[in-house]
Amino acid sequence: MSALVTSGTRVLPEWIDYNGHLMDGYYFVAFSDATEAVLEALGFGPAYRERTGHTIYTAEAHLTFLREVSLDTELSVATQVIDHDAKRIHVIHDMVDAATGERLATADLMFLHVDQSTGKVVPMPADQASRVESMAAAHADLPRPPELGRYVGMRRG
Amino acid sequence: MSALVTSGTRVLPEWIDYNGHLMDGYYFVAFSDATEAVLEALGFGPAYRERTGHTIYTAEAHLTFLREVSLDTELSVATQVIDHDAKRIHVIHDMVDAATGERLATADLMFLHVDQSTGKVVPMPADQASRVESMAAAHADLPRPPELGRYVGMRRG
Repeated sequence: MSALVTSGTRVLPEWIDYNGHLMDGYYFVAFSDATEAVLEALGFGPAYRERTGHTIYTAEAHLTFLREVSLDTELSVATQVIDHDAKRIHVIHDMVDAATGERLATADLMFLHVDQSTGKVVPMPADQASRVESMAAAHADLPRPPELGRYVGMRRG
Repeated sequence: MSALVTSGTRVLPEWIDYNGHLMDGYYFVAFSDATEAVLEALGFGPAYRERTGHTIYTAEAHLTFLREVSLDTELSVATQVIDHDAKRIHVIHDMVDAATGERLATADLMFLHVDQSTGKVVPMPADQASRVESMAAAHADLPRPPELGRYVGMRRG
């Protein structure tokens, strides 16, 4: 099987910085459609939150910026489930220029399953857990982006 | 000396997600004023880019989300220079609720000094390098946020 692909996001004028390119913070906003798509596919869309009072929070995110991105560029994001347990899902998004296929950025994300009434991180229900398990199994043999698991710091020497 | 503090950013309605809180991507956008302030203080504002054709790009960013943030919250961000060399600056932003002092999020950032005409990472000029050096020295003894240097991944055990 292949990664979950989300297409159709375009770089908006309000996302451009004084250098004329997509501003760092808006790369993360541009990844939102892909985050919504993967959470929807796993059964964690808005309807789930309304029904259960449980939802997914992002706990941590690591972004790498591989290329400058211009206004109107159409983006395509491939998402892989990397790891998971009863309460957490680790995914990585890999963003390319939909027209050229050039890699633009990655976002490594840790999601937590939270009970909004208590603010506590709690196990997912069986249906959602099994969807996460299936997607993780389907993605297990995909090549992983080399940006996976990086930290911000200077490597010297 | 103390960290560079940037105040006055408020959480805007368009930054709120369907959970009623600041959406993950917009935390990064909310850090923009602090990024601009530190780059301006180091001599890398828009005037520098116009004069030299050189500028600062963000290469990598690691965000941690410590608390939910509501509409209209006033944010205050303390920025420390963590590390630097001739071409790179590593800073961490620590965001708190300006009213309560509660910690909300961090952003660990690696900046590169880039010649826009070639796209290459190049050494900073002496004036800017000395400002970076001074700020790094002033911040060297500050306590560092525990979120510094993290990666996205599951620690088990």
